[in-house]
Amino acid sequence: MTVLILTSEEDVTADMVVVHLNATGVPVVRLDPADLTGGVALSGEFVHGAFRGHLSAAGRLVSIGGLRSVWMRRPGTPAARAAAPSAWLAEEAGQALYGMLRGCDARWMNHPDAARRARYKPWQLRLAQRCGLPVPATLITTFPQAAREFAARYPDLVVKPVSGAHPQDPPRAVPTSRVAPDADFSAVAFGPTLLQRRVAKRADIRLTAVGERLLAARKATGAEAEVDVRFAESATPWRPVEVAPRVAEAVRAYLRDAELAYGAFDFVEDADGTWWFLECNQSGQFGFVEVDTGQPIARTIAEWLARPVAGQEAHVNGVSAKAT
Amino acid sequence: MTVLILTSEEDVTADMVVVHLNATGVPVVRLDPADLTGGVALSGEFVHGAFRGHLSAAGRLVSIGGLRSVWMRRPGTPAARAAAPSAWLAEEAGQALYGMLRGCDARWMNHPDAARRARYKPWQLRLAQRCGLPVPATLITTFPQAAREFAARYPDLVVKPVSGAHPQDPPRAVPTSRVAPDADFSAVAFGPTLLQRRVAKRADIRLTAVGERLLAARKATGAEAEVDVRFAESATPWRPVEVAPRVAEAVRAYLRDAELAYGAFDFVEDADGTWWFLECNQSGQFGFVEVDTGQPIARTIAEWLARPVAGQEAHVNGVSAKAT
Repeated sequence: MTVLILTSEEDVTADMVVVHLNATGVPVVRLDPADLTGGVALSGEFVHGAFRGHLSAAGRLVSIGGLRSVWMRRPGTPAARAAAPSAWLAEEAGQALYGMLRGCDARWMNHPDAARRARYKPWQLRLAQRCGLPVPATLITTFPQAAREFAARYPDLVVKPVSGAHPQDPPRAVPTSRVAPDADFSAVAFGPTLLQRRVAKRADIRLTAVGERLLAARKATGAEAEVDVRFAESATPWRPVEVAPRVAEAVRAYLRDAELAYGAFDFVEDADGTWWFLECNQSGQFGFVEVDTGQPIARTIAEWLARPVAGQEAHVNGVSAKAT
Repeated sequence: MTVLILTSEEDVTADMVVVHLNATGVPVVRLDPADLTGGVALSGEFVHGAFRGHLSAAGRLVSIGGLRSVWMRRPGTPAARAAAPSAWLAEEAGQALYGMLRGCDARWMNHPDAARRARYKPWQLRLAQRCGLPVPATLITTFPQAAREFAARYPDLVVKPVSGAHPQDPPRAVPTSRVAPDADFSAVAFGPTLLQRRVAKRADIRLTAVGERLLAARKATGAEAEVDVRFAESATPWRPVEVAPRVAEAVRAYLRDAELAYGAFDFVEDADGTWWFLECNQSGQFGFVEVDTGQPIARTIAEWLARPVAGQEAHVNGVSAKAT
């Protein structure tokens, strides 16, 4: 049973996980869908009610039925590096590859459907609320009057994008910024705007969830509190921190409802020690946390990927069984 | 409880359904996401663990919590008709609109995640197989040798796109075509190719599924059998036809597993009367079938959309409760 990793060639985070997988002898195939139909080939046959599919990369052939897990790390656009790339070829190659993979019994980190849904910020906030995580008062609106009323109720405000990164090439992250309550909100009418009560924080929290395992890190706020820690230079390192049982329970409920095997949760900790949910990035980076804290995130991911599929142990072939 | 229809302004198929909804007095809001943030506005507040969201279109305000169903008919790209459209605005508007709608308890025809997954042809074939529908032998491959071997086994072949329409503007459908078994398959290496055993057909079947209700129509093959009936001019009309219990059971299993409330199934009927699964289009047109057969497809969709959400009957307001 093989672990399939879909990512670009240069991905040191994936390298970290592969090292652990190799150490345990689990067969790994790593490929970038962008290399369809150059270095990567595929074939699937639907005959007499059965499906047999194969992927080939770097001269290795792997059966789609023999996959134990699929790690959607940072896959490129299908066939992007083909001799004659086109939107049509990307669509055909993507349909073929993911259409076949979607029919397999492997465990996904994360499944494309769950990943897609998990990116919707309003959906995240609603789910976090339902799971019992504290969410700062938030408004998403195209009504200037609603924005004004919200600013009157919560004068200490930040504004941030509803979606993630700005779709430039390369994509540009848009930092969270403070906004004055008496700002001119009339432009809200031209595009949905996300306003959120600013939480006076004493620390940022990054909680990395891998399956059932939760690894949290804390970065104390310096003298100059940064609104958006992602864009701040800071000498303060991330330090491991315990997760309160109530938070752990809520985070696991979130992952279960979101059908995510991996999630990078961003919280801010207020003066009372409460962790306020900001977002959960289903493909969030973890290398910087592992470097600072020494938490075994890459190894935990490798262990999750290596876990056999329920009921598939019997199908482990000789090669896989021998590998150590 | 309101029915929300997301579609473009000019959509006669949606008009047919709205007529039935209006006749029963069920409140309907119809809007095109392309009209964000012109004629369409939205607002959602996440405060103290609760969510309150609203949509406004054509001067009508509807509560997102008060939606009984959402019909994803033919929604335009979010904010496409805004004063200053951009990829960024489309992303922000789409995240805001669908992010909020995804948090509601309404029934979807079809849910965006189910719809997206249902477009993958390899996934369709696999699911149809598992549900017990006969699927013509099919190969999807980038290996020329695999194509040659398949053609030797099934010399009467057709080739068709793995994905749907060619992404031109406007998109162009690519017809299914016959291919000779001794064709030069070397170009298969440059793009995934779908080869399928051609079924010698005596009729085409369009089975429209709306919830549990199945409405099938049959078009007898003329003297000149068309390979792809979608592109053929034909004097033969569609006629209603019974669905065999075994097929009905398999189709319902398909819809259940695919989590689809609506599906347009294309089959071909062979000389033995067997229906061979070709595809299930989760957004397939139905007007032409209704016109030919008189089958009440639009009314059945209206009934499905009007059905109250389980557990929400208590919230039906006076207007809805009176409607019959």
